[in-house]
Amino acid sequence: MLLILHPNTDENSEAYRITLDYLQQLPGIKIKKHLVQGQEQALTEIYLIGDTHTLDKSALEALPAVERAIKISEEYRVLGRHRDDKRVSGFDYQGLRFDQDNLHVFAGLCAVDNPTNVETMLRALRDHGQTCTRMGAYKPRTNPYAFQGHGANCLPWVFELAGKYGIKVIAMEVTHESHIDDIDRALAQTGHPTGVMLQIGTRNTQNFELLKAIGKQNRYPALLKRGFGITLSESLNAAEYLASEGNDRVIFCLRGMKSDYGAPHRNMVDFAQIPVIKRLTRMPVCIDPSHSVGSRERAPDGMLDLLHATAQGVIAGANMILVDFHPQPKEALVDGPQALLLSELDKFLKDIDIARQAYLARKILWSH
Amino acid sequence: MLLILHPNTDENSEAYRITLDYLQQLPGIKIKKHLVQGQEQALTEIYLIGDTHTLDKSALEALPAVERAIKISEEYRVLGRHRDDKRVSGFDYQGLRFDQDNLHVFAGLCAVDNPTNVETMLRALRDHGQTCTRMGAYKPRTNPYAFQGHGANCLPWVFELAGKYGIKVIAMEVTHESHIDDIDRALAQTGHPTGVMLQIGTRNTQNFELLKAIGKQNRYPALLKRGFGITLSESLNAAEYLASEGNDRVIFCLRGMKSDYGAPHRNMVDFAQIPVIKRLTRMPVCIDPSHSVGSRERAPDGMLDLLHATAQGVIAGANMILVDFHPQPKEALVDGPQALLLSELDKFLKDIDIARQAYLARKILWSH
Amino acid sequence: MLLILHPNTDENSEAYRITLDYLQQLPGIKIKKHLVQGQEQALTEIYLIGDTHTLDKSALEALPAVERAIKISEEYRVLGRHRDDKRVSGFDYQGLRFDQDNLHVFAGLCAVDNPTNVETMLRALRDHGQTCTRMGAYKPRTNPYAFQGHGANCLPWVFELAGKYGIKVIAMEVTHESHIDDIDRALAQTGHPTGVMLQIGTRNTQNFELLKAIGKQNRYPALLKRGFGITLSESLNAAEYLASEGNDRVIFCLRGMKSDYGAPHRNMVDFAQIPVIKRLTRMPVCIDPSHSVGSRERAPDGMLDLLHATAQGVIAGANMILVDFHPQPKEALVDGPQALLLSELDKFLKDIDIARQAYLARKILWSH
Amino acid sequence: MLLILHPNTDENSEAYRITLDYLQQLPGIKIKKHLVQGQEQALTEIYLIGDTHTLDKSALEALPAVERAIKISEEYRVLGRHRDDKRVSGFDYQGLRFDQDNLHVFAGLCAVDNPTNVETMLRALRDHGQTCTRMGAYKPRTNPYAFQGHGANCLPWVFELAGKYGIKVIAMEVTHESHIDDIDRALAQTGHPTGVMLQIGTRNTQNFELLKAIGKQNRYPALLKRGFGITLSESLNAAEYLASEGNDRVIFCLRGMKSDYGAPHRNMVDFAQIPVIKRLTRMPVCIDPSHSVGSRERAPDGMLDLLHATAQGVIAGANMILVDFHPQPKEALVDGPQALLLSELDKFLKDIDIARQAYLARKILWSH
Repeated sequence: MLLILHPNTDENSEAYRITLDYLQQLPGIKIKKHLVQGQEQALTEIYLIGDTHTLDKSALEALPAVERAIKISEEYRVLGRHRDDKRVSGFDYQGLRFDQDNLHVFAGLCAVDNPTNVETMLRALRDHGQTCTRMGAYKPRTNPYAFQGHGANCLPWVFELAGKYGIKVIAMEVTHESHIDDIDRALAQTGHPTGVMLQIGTRNTQNFELLKAIGKQNRYPALLKRGFGITLSESLNAAEYLASEGNDRVIFCLRGMKSDYGAPHRNMVDFAQIPVIKRLTRMPVCIDPSHSVGSRERAPDGMLDLLHATAQGVIAGANMILVDFHPQPKEALVDGPQALLLSELDKFLKDIDIARQAYLARKILWSH
Repeated sequence: MLLILHPNTDENSEAYRITLDYLQQLPGIKIKKHLVQGQEQALTEIYLIGDTHTLDKSALEALPAVERAIKISEEYRVLGRHRDDKRVSGFDYQGLRFDQDNLHVFAGLCAVDNPTNVETMLRALRDHGQTCTRMGAYKPRTNPYAFQGHGANCLPWVFELAGKYGIKVIAMEVTHESHIDDIDRALAQTGHPTGVMLQIGTRNTQNFELLKAIGKQNRYPALLKRGFGITLSESLNAAEYLASEGNDRVIFCLRGMKSDYGAPHRNMVDFAQIPVIKRLTRMPVCIDPSHSVGSRERAPDGMLDLLHATAQGVIAGANMILVDFHPQPKEALVDGPQALLLSELDKFLKDIDIARQAYLARKILWSH
Repeated sequence: MLLILHPNTDENSEAYRITLDYLQQLPGIKIKKHLVQGQEQALTEIYLIGDTHTLDKSALEALPAVERAIKISEEYRVLGRHRDDKRVSGFDYQGLRFDQDNLHVFAGLCAVDNPTNVETMLRALRDHGQTCTRMGAYKPRTNPYAFQGHGANCLPWVFELAGKYGIKVIAMEVTHESHIDDIDRALAQTGHPTGVMLQIGTRNTQNFELLKAIGKQNRYPALLKRGFGITLSESLNAAEYLASEGNDRVIFCLRGMKSDYGAPHRNMVDFAQIPVIKRLTRMPVCIDPSHSVGSRERAPDGMLDLLHATAQGVIAGANMILVDFHPQPKEALVDGPQALLLSELDKFLKDIDIARQAYLARKILWSH
Repeated sequence: MLLILHPNTDENSEAYRITLDYLQQLPGIKIKKHLVQGQEQALTEIYLIGDTHTLDKSALEALPAVERAIKISEEYRVLGRHRDDKRVSGFDYQGLRFDQDNLHVFAGLCAVDNPTNVETMLRALRDHGQTCTRMGAYKPRTNPYAFQGHGANCLPWVFELAGKYGIKVIAMEVTHESHIDDIDRALAQTGHPTGVMLQIGTRNTQNFELLKAIGKQNRYPALLKRGFGITLSESLNAAEYLASEGNDRVIFCLRGMKSDYGAPHRNMVDFAQIPVIKRLTRMPVCIDPSHSVGSRERAPDGMLDLLHATAQGVIAGANMILVDFHPQPKEALVDGPQALLLSELDKFLKDIDIARQAYLARKILWSH
């Protein structure tokens, strides 16, 4: 059972105290409080966990601080969509809105290599009106002897360059809770020139300790990649780990599944599940065509498979695109062969626009 | 090595005889002749199979009947795209063109049940300007005690109704070579009111004896569904079985792969591989969103997952759509729950049109 | 519902007639008769299919020809194990017993190549007291241009050689119903020197038309290989196709599943499911270690992976082993690299014996 | 290239200094030192990483501290088996030997629940001569609202009880580096009554930060479970992460792979890969039949599937068995339904012995 309190309920008010007192004496019920900070008001949600079958919805709604009680299913309590659940989806960060209705492009470098390439990339983004990017500082690699990213050292200059070119949000993978501290430090040191979205990679989708650490802070939203080798439901449960600890600013990212059915693509593209995630949860859905497809192969119609996959994601309502570009793919330290070229950025954005307009036209078509 | 003879080469000509005599004495080389009947001219292709490394391309091109010699890879000899291979893709059937550039919709009944439902379906198609449909008479079912289709009995009235409503091609699954005879008979008996595309289902993708039987006839083109449990390359090899026996009028159909990664969809949608098939072969590519998705679940944006999957296929260049409709889904004997309703047909076609226009705009964008 | 009639019930008896008359007037119930020819008596089983919920078990058992009525589940009606189902498992063929309690080795050639190799193989088997073998005449191959087996031509001399060396049963794949006629003819022509077990390969597990053809005859038992890409339940349903048509002399063969989790083995060995198949059905269970493992790689303990897989099957109760040997692996036309050598046959049989004795000791351990 | 120094080489000796000086001036080569503490002597291994093609093996072997130089492949440098690599496998811990030749049983509780159950379990193990167990204190769970284990709180009394009953090694999953500190503290506080093997679960197989933390300490050996959703090679690379940081006392555990081919088992049992891991690496191989099979279903031969899977692992040379028992399965907080009963412990150990004797007999059979 989920109780939504009246907006801006003061925790020191008598209404709040009476409500909590009542809830705390319910037998076999644990209370979990969750704060939702919207643009204009703060909402307090209270989850009642345990043997809730005997609870009386109207009795709960009669409590002074309670605006509405919602029966919720066991799964995805915070992030899920429940029957009669009119809670909004999405969140604001750095002045940008991330929800299930809009679309952001995060083009950038899979792995930060040197300032020249980073600056070239960011300048191109700025020149095309982009305000988000991806930049990998910590790279988890299958082979322990492979390049593992420049780590904390590169953060200050990456952030400064981002600020210089008007980038508001950088999606950046973290693989250890200490990386959040690194980011805190580097942002503080450079005067917060940009924002960061903490990315959890597919190898860490069920690294619950990392999820808890990211869930416990509210400074940065999280981008959780679907885990390979596990079901969609298990990956959505992993997202709920973030939310259950307090951070419900979570975007879920499809990135292809390992399967020999997907060859010759690196992974089997799974973007047909965009509508599934929107139906089951309130998270915005990101796609990662670069890692899904993993090559620059081209069809006889002149378009890269990776562009087709991107268009497929967008026409089905994707809300975010994480994509690898590189000014000098041959210099790239990780995943160079799949990177798009800066010379392709302009058409890439136009291509996305075509698919996005098609999505919007489809939505209107079916809405009446 | 592939030799393309001059158009309309007469097999009784001296040029032909001299050429064949030369080829037949090549040591360790087998000759396989393949006829391509185009709209305006007939082409003879001669495949040289065996130890072709020592063959001299220019010597072969000097033969009197040979227009061009093409080095081809071992795989997909007939259907494949080879380097410098400018052979056209696609074919004509019943006055319709099927190739890698256009798009046909085959909406219809998964399984023929009764004349009323068939006629209602066909009338609706005619009213929307459609000339193709799908109608299942032979249904391979996992459980031996389940309904197996009305078989040969329903063919005459299905064909007559098709003719009555201007349907030119019916995609129809066959599971045994004798079904081709059934179709021959029923078409002859009813005066050929329509045409048939022989569909090979996913359980028979590697039923090589069935493939050979369908490959040996040229009256009907073939629609080969990708096999589940095998790689894409193995399914493309299965298509080559059809062509190697003489019938290269083959369309390849993506229909989702069995994988628990695909849940809650019935199968894991694999439409990201459309450009792959076009690159590796010259076959038109069909998508089957109904069996891929397998349900009528809907996203919060108001569109069925199945519609999103369809749009994803079309925006990446699909050439054919096989889709289940039913006038009375609850009466459907097979796969009712996934069928679209006749009331949705109009918007469905408009939806496809939006995605198709987006594909064409993308193609123009990237072509210069 | 399953009715088991009194042994040796005469279809012309009054008891039979009265019983059938009664059953035929039951509303919504279809009757399916199934004959089981045991060593000493014939049993008639009658399956009542349809809306059986309202049937009265004791009323049915009161019918004059009925010995026992058994409520059966929908799945695997004939081959399944149902509650209170004491029907025996297994069958006799060529004087050999095949059931869930014993073990037969079918060592032999994956593909028949020439009489010398076949004779060398068979002589070695005779010299080691073996009476079964495998010999492939029809080889379904992924690539249409690969060797497809010697087919009908080799059958007469293969059968004669088998007879010469005392081989009683040859497991032989068939891919088309006409191959059964080929085998009939060749056995008749050579005076029935041996017997044949019809093998259905993994690509044809759901080739229902082939299954029906094999199910309609009773001259040869069937060996059905598990299909790749489908669930175990779907493969067991395929076995039921054979039985539903009349032939319940079916052995089910595990042969590894396609999965990149299985690498570097060719397939992922699935022999842990031996007890599952025995629990769900009454079929004997065969293992095919050669195609599961697909190589001759060896562990540091000196044993081939293929030998370990075989021992794993046997210690869990496998009833049949299908295994590739070849006198000259380099000459083998199909799958040479995985074949065992004749020089390994003696130890191979001793190895199996060690594992079999361990299985029997385990069975005694847990039986009291 | 791997250099093995003379046994007990002193790092302060001149021979060592000269050797290192030489190595450090090699262009493009990084040096990685690895210490192997054997029972009687200490070995220093020096890995030369980078562009080693031009190095001269005999020049290196002429260095004063070098006993032998071995060319090694890129993969699994420390844990792998390389050509001409005669390094021993395995290690000693708590007076027990763990290598590719012997076998240890780790029966115990999947999750610690209360002292009574833990003590009952440990007493039973002691009474059957067992000195190892498994006890889960930290339980990573798919659902964030599920029981997550008693954590650090239970460690002191679990360790004390283990000591009381003569248990020398407890396999215990850790999901965060701080858990190692917890274990350190609890062992110190209780006077080191037992030892711990740090277990990395399948969800953390590629949690490289956790692997590095465990690899950096040498107090506890590691038990790495194969990751689901990744290839065997990727999981072996994860093991190499541990070793590359310094801890090469690693056991690799097969625990079944997620796949719908495995149903009705919880996972698809992968024990056929035991010989593969022994061939590719020098790690002992553990099997986890409880999580692979995931149920107490029984075959008609009277044995649980889980017992068959165990025997399959042992007859193929498994070196360790991790298995769930529970005195009161219905009280178990995690995975109760798959637990074996204490009343089955005696026969379970005898069953293992039968399979182990069969393995040893097979090894003798094939060794000459």
